[in-house]
Amino acid sequence: MKLLIINGPNINFIGIREKNIYGAKDYAYLLDIIAKKAEELEVEAEVFQDNGEGPIIDRIQKAYSDGTDAIIINPGAYTHYSYAIRDALASVTMPKIEIHISNVYTRDEFRHTSVTAPVCTAQIAGLGLNGYLYAMEAAKDIVNSNN
Amino acid sequence: MKLLIINGPNINFIGIREKNIYGAKDYAYLLDIIAKKAEELEVEAEVFQDNGEGPIIDRIQKAYSDGTDAIIINPGAYTHYSYAIRDALASVTMPKIEIHISNVYTRDEFRHTSVTAPVCTAQIAGLGLNGYLYAMEAAKDIVNSNN
Amino acid sequence: MKLLIINGPNINFIGIREKNIYGAKDYAYLLDIIAKKAEELEVEAEVFQDNGEGPIIDRIQKAYSDGTDAIIINPGAYTHYSYAIRDALASVTMPKIEIHISNVYTRDEFRHTSVTAPVCTAQIAGLGLNGYLYAMEAAKDIVNSNN
Amino acid sequence: MKLLIINGPNINFIGIREKNIYGAKDYAYLLDIIAKKAEELEVEAEVFQDNGEGPIIDRIQKAYSDGTDAIIINPGAYTHYSYAIRDALASVTMPKIEIHISNVYTRDEFRHTSVTAPVCTAQIAGLGLNGYLYAMEAAKDIVNSNN
Amino acid sequence: MKLLIINGPNINFIGIREKNIYGAKDYAYLLDIIAKKAEELEVEAEVFQDNGEGPIIDRIQKAYSDGTDAIIINPGAYTHYSYAIRDALASVTMPKIEIHISNVYTRDEFRHTSVTAPVCTAQIAGLGLNGYLYAMEAAKDIVNSNN
Amino acid sequence: MKLLIINGPNINFIGIREKNIYGAKDYAYLLDIIAKKAEELEVEAEVFQDNGEGPIIDRIQKAYSDGTDAIIINPGAYTHYSYAIRDALASVTMPKIEIHISNVYTRDEFRHTSVTAPVCTAQIAGLGLNGYLYAMEAAKDIVNSNN
Amino acid sequence: MKLLIINGPNINFIGIREKNIYGAKDYAYLLDIIAKKAEELEVEAEVFQDNGEGPIIDRIQKAYSDGTDAIIINPGAYTHYSYAIRDALASVTMPKIEIHISNVYTRDEFRHTSVTAPVCTAQIAGLGLNGYLYAMEAAKDIVNSNN
Amino acid sequence: MKLLIINGPNINFIGIREKNIYGAKDYAYLLDIIAKKAEELEVEAEVFQDNGEGPIIDRIQKAYSDGTDAIIINPGAYTHYSYAIRDALASVTMPKIEIHISNVYTRDEFRHTSVTAPVCTAQIAGLGLNGYLYAMEAAKDIVNSNN
Amino acid sequence: MKLLIINGPNINFIGIREKNIYGAKDYAYLLDIIAKKAEELEVEAEVFQDNGEGPIIDRIQKAYSDGTDAIIINPGAYTHYSYAIRDALASVTMPKIEIHISNVYTRDEFRHTSVTAPVCTAQIAGLGLNGYLYAMEAAKDIVNSNN
Amino acid sequence: MKLLIINGPNINFIGIREKNIYGAKDYAYLLDIIAKKAEELEVEAEVFQDNGEGPIIDRIQKAYSDGTDAIIINPGAYTHYSYAIRDALASVTMPKIEIHISNVYTRDEFRHTSVTAPVCTAQIAGLGLNGYLYAMEAAKDIVNSNN
Amino acid sequence: MKLLIINGPNINFIGIREKNIYGAKDYAYLLDIIAKKAEELEVEAEVFQDNGEGPIIDRIQKAYSDGTDAIIINPGAYTHYSYAIRDALASVTMPKIEIHISNVYTRDEFRHTSVTAPVCTAQIAGLGLNGYLYAMEAAKDIVNSNN
Amino acid sequence: MKLLIINGPNINFIGIREKNIYGAKDYAYLLDIIAKKAEELEVEAEVFQDNGEGPIIDRIQKAYSDGTDAIIINPGAYTHYSYAIRDALASVTMPKIEIHISNVYTRDEFRHTSVTAPVCTAQIAGLGLNGYLYAMEAAKDIVNSNN
Repeated sequence: MKLLIINGPNINFIGIREKNIYGAKDYAYLLDIIAKKAEELEVEAEVFQDNGEGPIIDRIQKAYSDGTDAIIINPGAYTHYSYAIRDALASVTMPKIEIHISNVYTRDEFRHTSVTAPVCTAQIAGLGLNGYLYAMEAAKDIVNSNN
Repeated sequence: MKLLIINGPNINFIGIREKNIYGAKDYAYLLDIIAKKAEELEVEAEVFQDNGEGPIIDRIQKAYSDGTDAIIINPGAYTHYSYAIRDALASVTMPKIEIHISNVYTRDEFRHTSVTAPVCTAQIAGLGLNGYLYAMEAAKDIVNSNN
Repeated sequence: MKLLIINGPNINFIGIREKNIYGAKDYAYLLDIIAKKAEELEVEAEVFQDNGEGPIIDRIQKAYSDGTDAIIINPGAYTHYSYAIRDALASVTMPKIEIHISNVYTRDEFRHTSVTAPVCTAQIAGLGLNGYLYAMEAAKDIVNSNN
Repeated sequence: MKLLIINGPNINFIGIREKNIYGAKDYAYLLDIIAKKAEELEVEAEVFQDNGEGPIIDRIQKAYSDGTDAIIINPGAYTHYSYAIRDALASVTMPKIEIHISNVYTRDEFRHTSVTAPVCTAQIAGLGLNGYLYAMEAAKDIVNSNN
Repeated sequence: MKLLIINGPNINFIGIREKNIYGAKDYAYLLDIIAKKAEELEVEAEVFQDNGEGPIIDRIQKAYSDGTDAIIINPGAYTHYSYAIRDALASVTMPKIEIHISNVYTRDEFRHTSVTAPVCTAQIAGLGLNGYLYAMEAAKDIVNSNN
Repeated sequence: MKLLIINGPNINFIGIREKNIYGAKDYAYLLDIIAKKAEELEVEAEVFQDNGEGPIIDRIQKAYSDGTDAIIINPGAYTHYSYAIRDALASVTMPKIEIHISNVYTRDEFRHTSVTAPVCTAQIAGLGLNGYLYAMEAAKDIVNSNN
Repeated sequence: MKLLIINGPNINFIGIREKNIYGAKDYAYLLDIIAKKAEELEVEAEVFQDNGEGPIIDRIQKAYSDGTDAIIINPGAYTHYSYAIRDALASVTMPKIEIHISNVYTRDEFRHTSVTAPVCTAQIAGLGLNGYLYAMEAAKDIVNSNN
Repeated sequence: MKLLIINGPNINFIGIREKNIYGAKDYAYLLDIIAKKAEELEVEAEVFQDNGEGPIIDRIQKAYSDGTDAIIINPGAYTHYSYAIRDALASVTMPKIEIHISNVYTRDEFRHTSVTAPVCTAQIAGLGLNGYLYAMEAAKDIVNSNN
Repeated sequence: MKLLIINGPNINFIGIREKNIYGAKDYAYLLDIIAKKAEELEVEAEVFQDNGEGPIIDRIQKAYSDGTDAIIINPGAYTHYSYAIRDALASVTMPKIEIHISNVYTRDEFRHTSVTAPVCTAQIAGLGLNGYLYAMEAAKDIVNSNN
Repeated sequence: MKLLIINGPNINFIGIREKNIYGAKDYAYLLDIIAKKAEELEVEAEVFQDNGEGPIIDRIQKAYSDGTDAIIINPGAYTHYSYAIRDALASVTMPKIEIHISNVYTRDEFRHTSVTAPVCTAQIAGLGLNGYLYAMEAAKDIVNSNN
Repeated sequence: MKLLIINGPNINFIGIREKNIYGAKDYAYLLDIIAKKAEELEVEAEVFQDNGEGPIIDRIQKAYSDGTDAIIINPGAYTHYSYAIRDALASVTMPKIEIHISNVYTRDEFRHTSVTAPVCTAQIAGLGLNGYLYAMEAAKDIVNSNN
Repeated sequence: MKLLIINGPNINFIGIREKNIYGAKDYAYLLDIIAKKAEELEVEAEVFQDNGEGPIIDRIQKAYSDGTDAIIINPGAYTHYSYAIRDALASVTMPKIEIHISNVYTRDEFRHTSVTAPVCTAQIAGLGLNGYLYAMEAAKDIVNSNN
């Protein structure tokens, strides 16, 4: 089973960026716990990060034909306005889980709206970096139950 | 460790109510998988359900002094307008996870707004009845990491 | 045939409350004309009144299994914000008629919106207490035509 | 007693237009059941239909002096924006009942607002073609009780 | 000099319609004082009334080529939504004065917006039937000063 | 003279709940100062608290016939959306004073709107627990001046 | 008969300010034609101008007791937000005519709203400086017809 | 094949009305190029123009039974508010193309909304009078491809 | 102890202005009862009234250094839009109580918003002229409890 | 003559993405019919596709100096929020035609707004892949008529 | 060259008012650095401060004829609602620079809107008291480049 | 000291793009005056331009570790919607000055909102290309005063 984890703009700056919100662990740490979880779950996990809409859409489209079984995506700020990423997600039919590190509902008004959520299967927010791990478990369960 | 799981109005009607949205498993099934998960996690899990705001607020207040370590709450339709439940949740300080069975963002416009989310720690939506189980795991992890 | 008539908050105060809007006849009078109409239509008519959301939802859920053929509901002020009652009505599939004694469209702005109407079969407003009687006739007709 | 029944734009196309919403009975059928009901109620019932605002307003104004005792009006799509018809209805003082064949609250957002309702006595929606018959009964009752 | 006075829907019902707002003088009286004022001002004054948008637009278009020097228009309720009449007024270039008998700003919210005002030269509101006479004077003055 | 003091949801949790907003004094303290003030003013003061809309409406309705001369109500979060409590307050005609412990205008946006204020006689906000005492004085003065 | 003409902020700058909107005639010219019109109408006409809300309100209040029979007011930009001037106008009961030199409805969006219009008797807009003269005639007529 | 081309209010005034927007060619010219295009495409093309909603709806309804294969409609200003024309278009099932001569998106805000577009097959805007000719080609292609 | 009582525009017109709202007692009466209350409370009470924003702000600024212990302010209509008075109140740190004679929530929509309330300590509304006396008591209590 | 055809995000996924909306023909088919049409029209047609805003803007800017005579652009989801693409289009002055494959007005609310349309010459929507061919014809005609 | 620097309400209270926002330097310090900068730039700089709209408008009007070459204005809270000051600024044609000491975009929502900015040449915000000095430099440069 | 100047989409097209708004000087000219100013201020100034969000975010992130002391950014159209750039700016803590060449407040409504301003230190708009030079001076002053 192959999981694709996509991180949008500025996610690579955790540990640097607003530590009171995102915590002090950095991006390398995130990659590390994802890798360990993948091993534990016996799945393949690829992590992709980019700051631009275009490359993120390219990567989602590539998932259509590269054997990806599920997508876990943290679209960062694109969550709130990228209808282009929404369309890309809508065009591929595997399970998709949207994830946010922080509880977006306790922050700026504009972060309360997600334009990508309506085309995803599920959302997890506010569970910190561990949220990725729960999402991986859930993605595996959904793929298995669909088969 | 003691987890309190609160289910708001009409959650007791899953399996009856709109099966295309909530699935065909009924409330007894939900109680059962929660009990099994509690056993697995070695935590105490109490499930409380009521259709009224008053009793739900009463139960949250009782959690202040009955040794509850974390609350998992599916406020049902109250999610979208019960500032009274929000105030009750804000008045108790243990971790609180909001959960929804369905992906609320693919449904009616009014279901896209949560007045309780800003006073919770995290949200999980769209993972079906399994969402309760992930929330239980996450709640245990948060309580442990806080200690 | 069994009709369930549900009256929401403050309906029990007609004849006392704002007589210029609701008229001078009191709640006992309403119960009386409903009983007479039921006799005339040869149907069973139970009238339930409560000021709280919780008991109203409980009563709607009970109708799922107690042989109720149709619901006539005057949700009172809950008409305008109780998504919880809306969900309860949506979860039971018999015909449901929403009724208002006064013409809500000539009153406060907030009374122009009904969150329960979209899950009902029909609405009657502004026909005074007689509105209940027309609703009973219509409910009987719909149940008969569905069979 | 004389009842004037006014049908606005496209009502003459029932049975043709969106049968899933308006049913398969055509306009001739509607005229027929109205005529029969008039006979049963021993009232005179004139049915007027036009697709334009001007002729509808002309007809309402004529009712001021032609002995009409009550108006039953289905303004069709004009319900949602014709302040001109609203003004015409407001200028004549007999009882006026607004009627809609379908439950407008389950349809497009724009159909949830009625600019004519605030100047009518009552509204009936969602009872299908039978709604006209209930409206005729109610109109007769109101006229009688006013005398 | 030729003045065209256009009265929209329900203006022909003054003296009948809501006398507390429009006064007790009837439409014949209005025609009479307009005729007298025309004589006094030594202008030709044609008064046109219709309840429909189509005929009003037809009449405005006709003014393009029939020697009309100025238009005085009371669009009635069309003031608030008829972009079609607005377009017709915009397509003819003589001076145009919008007039309202009552002070529309003390009435319903929807009467505070005029979609026709932006394509007129001037507005007069709240001066009762006399408003037509001031408008006639003003129209004559504007036409004269333009020459 | 009999004063009825109604406290809505979570008011019983002062001293526990958000002390930075509501202060450190608890509910027993509030009951105590109200009792002392009643003695000083030589009035009877009953305090009622409930977390649900239904029981609060029941209590207001009971005041219609139990000799209550004035109502002092802190509707808690229901202030902002309970049209049902609003209707109950509107149905009884004695003086009614709305009270808030904190200055609601310095808090969340949703707390700036009161749906109950338009049916009360007066409001007091931001004077802390003492606000109840001023309200009691004012209620007595209003009742006396009405007689 | 005494007419008080109040000009708000920047009206004294006509002829200087945006000539394409207000024309090339200056304030002295306006004072002159008002004086001449007063003579013709055989009324006393006082013109008051100030750029501040306070002095305008003071002047309106003074009109309460100085024998003013009618007020003609061009509130300038205060038209669009000065609820304080609105209250002052509401507190004096003689006829009040609001006047604007330009057609405010062809200009900025914010100029389409008048907070003072709802407490005036009538409005005239877009007739240029002559608008003051029509207003004086109308004011005289209204005062005479009220007596 | 029979194409029905419907022109709404003021379209007959092109060449007269706002030439900077609609160009200098008049309505006769439009009729001429449509006729020539019909000949070229070997289809029958009827052009209908009216300034009123009623006659336009009448014409659309007539198309239901007169053998019309496709409708090309320029609803003029009715585009922005005529839900009645929308309902008429929705009631007939042949292909329908909405056309605008000018680019409505560069003009007034209110012209950016089309209430008729959601019930049409396609829209063409901003191609001038030639837009009708492209619409005719497209209509023919769609009818052919549907057969 | 020194209390500064500031009355905004048109407050000096009570007893004249809309007596149904403000009562029949005039401004001299208000000054009188304030003076008597000051004597009773053994505080110094200065009353300042002005119709302009500038002088009110000047007076608030002067309070910074003239020994004022608390401000009681009825900003009149400025309540609803004067961000300048809001800033002035925010710049001085003594207790500030906003007061309104009438229940502003039963009046025009625009009176439901206060831009000054968020920078005050407390608000009292609807207690008539006596409201000033309760505010004086409360101000004294707050000042004492702060010391 | 050189036509530049720009396709925004996800247009390359037609035939894969939501076939019920975009049809079953794939992107290669689109390129093919465009090439054939170019041959027929005797114009040069370059097709450019990218999923990112930056490269699309780069390409538009390049058109300023590479001899492009007209641009046909399907901005995909960027239509609804890319003010940056709008600015790029505004900075080049050749004819620009916006095209959409589906009828965007029958889909999600957010697809009803185009931020790029106001800087284009014309729009075509809902004609399927053939829309590109009509746009090519129209572009050629406009370029020719401008010369 | 003569520069007029206008400071609106409460600017004279810097150093007193909210030091965390405006810094600890007082108004005398601001006057001093402006004077020194004027000397350095070899321009005349007059600083005017008032808390009222009226005097600020008076001062702007006076600038029309007193040789002022440019205006630098910090309208304080009037920035957000004073259309009267906006009109005054629009009526004088020299360069006008709007300045704010703090970054208004990081503060209350209402401070994000400027009604005066659209009639100014430029804006500077967030540069502290030094902002005045940059504005003086820029004003001098603009005046020089215009000559 | 090192200043990083970032120019967003289409800024490289000044001198080409809408000269009436941006002036006739081209991008090379801008680079030149920035370079000269840097020499004068004795700072290092790097100018970066890109039309895409991704590369701009990449560049901002790089500034975290490349010794940049201050950022001057003209986000072009991204100003109005790029929450991703906003997040990037928020993640780096050096002084940041937002700059616009034109006065954005005199242009389209959408240009009046800046989503990046709340995370910058200051803004300068409307000073033309010279605005960059003032921003460089200000940036240097802020960096110096922070040290």
